[in-house]
Amino acid sequence: MIREKPVVSDIAELYRHNGQTVTLRGWVYHLRSSGKVRFLVLRDGTGLAQAVLVKGNLPEEDFQEFERLTLESSVALTGLVKAEPRAPGGYELEATGLTPIHIAQDYPISPKEHGVAFLMDRRHLWLRSPRQQAILRVRDEVCRACRDFFHDRGFVLVDTPILTPTACEGTTSLFETDYLDRGKAYLSQSGQLYLEAAAMALGRVYCFGPTFRAEKSKTRRHLTEFWMVEAEAAFYTLEDVMELAESLVRTVVLRVLEHQEARLHLLERDIAPLAAVAEPFPRLSYAQALEHLKEHGKEMAWGDDLGGDEETVISQLFPRPVLVHRYPQEAKAFYMEPDPEDPRLALCVDMLAPEGYGEIVGGSQRIADLDTLLARIREHHLPEEPLEWYLDLRRYGSVPHGGFGMGIERLVAWICGLHHVRETIPFPRLLDRIYP
Amino acid sequence: MIREKPVVSDIAELYRHNGQTVTLRGWVYHLRSSGKVRFLVLRDGTGLAQAVLVKGNLPEEDFQEFERLTLESSVALTGLVKAEPRAPGGYELEATGLTPIHIAQDYPISPKEHGVAFLMDRRHLWLRSPRQQAILRVRDEVCRACRDFFHDRGFVLVDTPILTPTACEGTTSLFETDYLDRGKAYLSQSGQLYLEAAAMALGRVYCFGPTFRAEKSKTRRHLTEFWMVEAEAAFYTLEDVMELAESLVRTVVLRVLEHQEARLHLLERDIAPLAAVAEPFPRLSYAQALEHLKEHGKEMAWGDDLGGDEETVISQLFPRPVLVHRYPQEAKAFYMEPDPEDPRLALCVDMLAPEGYGEIVGGSQRIADLDTLLARIREHHLPEEPLEWYLDLRRYGSVPHGGFGMGIERLVAWICGLHHVRETIPFPRLLDRIYP
Repeated sequence: MIREKPVVSDIAELYRHNGQTVTLRGWVYHLRSSGKVRFLVLRDGTGLAQAVLVKGNLPEEDFQEFERLTLESSVALTGLVKAEPRAPGGYELEATGLTPIHIAQDYPISPKEHGVAFLMDRRHLWLRSPRQQAILRVRDEVCRACRDFFHDRGFVLVDTPILTPTACEGTTSLFETDYLDRGKAYLSQSGQLYLEAAAMALGRVYCFGPTFRAEKSKTRRHLTEFWMVEAEAAFYTLEDVMELAESLVRTVVLRVLEHQEARLHLLERDIAPLAAVAEPFPRLSYAQALEHLKEHGKEMAWGDDLGGDEETVISQLFPRPVLVHRYPQEAKAFYMEPDPEDPRLALCVDMLAPEGYGEIVGGSQRIADLDTLLARIREHHLPEEPLEWYLDLRRYGSVPHGGFGMGIERLVAWICGLHHVRETIPFPRLLDRIYP
Repeated sequence: MIREKPVVSDIAELYRHNGQTVTLRGWVYHLRSSGKVRFLVLRDGTGLAQAVLVKGNLPEEDFQEFERLTLESSVALTGLVKAEPRAPGGYELEATGLTPIHIAQDYPISPKEHGVAFLMDRRHLWLRSPRQQAILRVRDEVCRACRDFFHDRGFVLVDTPILTPTACEGTTSLFETDYLDRGKAYLSQSGQLYLEAAAMALGRVYCFGPTFRAEKSKTRRHLTEFWMVEAEAAFYTLEDVMELAESLVRTVVLRVLEHQEARLHLLERDIAPLAAVAEPFPRLSYAQALEHLKEHGKEMAWGDDLGGDEETVISQLFPRPVLVHRYPQEAKAFYMEPDPEDPRLALCVDMLAPEGYGEIVGGSQRIADLDTLLARIREHHLPEEPLEWYLDLRRYGSVPHGGFGMGIERLVAWICGLHHVRETIPFPRLLDRIYP
C-alpha cells in the first residue's frame, strides 16, 4: 500500500486541517476500548486530541499495535480530521495509521491523588500533567506581559549581575561561592543597585532574572531561587513608582485573562478577583494599615514591618491589590528616601495581593543626596568601600529616582489561585529540595 | 513671573512637540559659550538635544546658573522646541528656563582615551557614554527578538534552575555553593537537560537566563557569567535544529538592522556582513572543515574539537555564519545522538559567526534510547544516580528530540563589531573582575 505523506500538525492547529489527513505526534494520555473501536487521547504539549481507531480503517498491524500502548508511550498517529464538538479541543481524528515510537514503562503518575513529595520527586514527569502545563503557560504569558509592558513604556532591558562582590544587607540569607582567586562572591538578591546606575545612563531600565535567598523559611510563599522583574527610573517619585507598579499588575493580569482564560478555567480559578484589578487599587499609609490591624485584633508596635500574617489580614480587607506606603525607616532598607513630611518614614511602598497571597511588589524612591545616603550606610553598619560605585551615583548628577521589584512566582500563584508557590516554577528550589 | 507648567518630554519624543514649550530633564553632556549665547547639550537616556540659552530669553538667575554647570550635572531645562536639521536629533530647544538639580563633581570620564581597566572600574559611569548606551540598546533588541522568535513558533518559556545538584561534566569549571543543609550545589552552565524534560511535556520550549563558567580563560570571547537562550523540541532532528538555529540568527540580525541601524552607525559598524545573513548559511561537515583547515595550514587530528583559532580560520572563509555539523563523538558531550550513518560521529552542530567571532550556537539531536544513553554516561564516568530523572525521559515515551544554545554576548559582540565581549553586558564578570 502506497501512502502519501500527510502533513504533520500540532494538536492546537487541527482546526486548520478540518477534512484533511494529518499526522499527530505525541504521547498517550488515555486509552479505551469498546468492541471493535479503540479510542486514544493524545497529548503533544499544544493540546489534547482524541483519535478513533476502527478496525478496517487502518492496516491490521497498526490496529494491533494499539494493544501494546501504555500511558505516556510516544506515537505517531495519522488520520482524517473531523469537527466533533464533544471532543476535547473540538476536533477528532479518524485514524488511518498508528506507529508506536516508544512504549513507556509503567508510568508512575496516575490520575489518582499523589502526595506532594512524590510528585516533586518526579517533577520532570509531573510537568506533563494538564494542570502543570497550564500553570507554565500562564507563567510564560506573565513574563512576556511584563517585558512588553516595560518595552512599551521606553524601559531598556539591563541584565544585572548574579555574582556580586558584596553582601550589602548581611550574609545570613546569601548563597556564597568562591570567585576564582578573588575571594567570595554572593548570589544576587536584587538587581536594584545596579539598575540605579543604569537608570542614570538610560533613563528608564528594567531587569528580569533569577534571584536567590538562602532563607531557612519553609512557608508556602518562599523559594530559595525565584524570578523577579525590577524597574528603575530617573526622576521617578514614590507617586510615580506606585502608579507604575499598579499599572504593571493591572496590565499583566488583564492580559492573562484575555489570552489564557481557558487555562485559568482548567485550573478552576475563580476569575472574579482577577477581573477586579481593572479598578484603582486602594492605598493605605503604614499608619492606616496599623489601624486596620488593630481593628482586626492584630495590634502591632509602630516601627515593625508587616509580617506574613499581618499582610494576610490587610489583603483580605480589599477585593483587589492594596498599596501600603510610607513605612518607618527602621523597618526598611538603607537606600530609601526619607519622607520630607515626616523623616521617620521612608518613601516606600509594598503591594499586597488579595486573597492572602502576600507581598508581590516592593518599591521606593531612593535617597538622592550623598550625605544622607552615607549617614544611612553608617547607621546600618554597612561597609562603605564596596559601595563606592553606588555612592558615585550621588556625586555625578544625582537625581530623584525610584523603582520596584515584583516577584513572579507569587504573582503567578495568585493569578492561578495556587496554594503554594512551588508549582509556579518549572523546577522549584526549596529549603529541603534541589532535585531534580 | 507666573509660568505655566510645561509638559515634560523625553528627548526622543521632541518631534511630537515642535513649536511647543517643554521641559527636558537629564544630564549635561556638553557645554559651550559664545558671546552672549550659551549652548548646552543634554542627554536623558533617550537621546541628545541641544539647548540654546540667549541672555534675556530666560530669567537672569537661570542664565547665570549656566556658569555653575559641569559635565554630568543634572538639570531641568525648559524651552521652545524648534526643528533644526543641523542639531543632534533634528530638534533644538530655545531655553526659557534652567534649573540645576545637582552639580556633579569633576567627572572622571572625558572624551579623551582611557584605558580599559580605568573604564571597567567605572563601569557604572561608563554606561552613560553614547557607545555603551547604543550597545545596551542593541542587546535589548537582540533579547526581545529572540523571545519573539520563539513565541511566534509556539515555544513556551521554561525557566530552568540555576542551582543544580550535580556536576554533570566535571566540577572544574563550576561555581559551587553550600545549599543550606543539603550539601553542595552548582551554578548552571546550561538549562538543556531540564529543557529536555519540559519538551516532553510542552513539545517546544526555551529558556533564557544567566549561565556560569568558572573558567580560568582570559580571552576576548569569555565571561564567567553570560546569558544564553536555549531551545529544545520534541521530534526535532539535527536537520530541524540546524534550520531553527539558522532562522533564529537571521531573524535577530535582520531585526536589529531594521530597528537599531542608527545605533550600529554610531558604533561605526559596517553593516554589510550583517545584511549577508539574509542568504542561506553554508554547512560543512566536520570532515569538510578539517579539509579547509588543512588547506589553510591548520592541520588538525581527526577527533579533536575545533579551538578558537580553528573557528576563526573557518569563519573567515565565508561571508556569513557557517554551520559545522557531525563532529566526532569523542569531541562532544555525552548526550548527543550518534549518527546512524557513521556512529563515530555525533548528530551535532556548531554555528560560527563570521569575521572571527567564534562559536555562537551549539546544538544537537539528543540520544533517545535508554541503553545508548546509559552506555555513554558510563563511558564518560558520570554518576548515574543524579541523572536518574534525566534517564526517565528515555523510559516514558522517549522521542527523537534536539535543541541548541546561543550565547547572547558573542552574538551582540558580532552584531556591534566589538573586539571583546566585555562591553556587551552591563556589568561584566571576568576572570579578574567582579566589581562594580
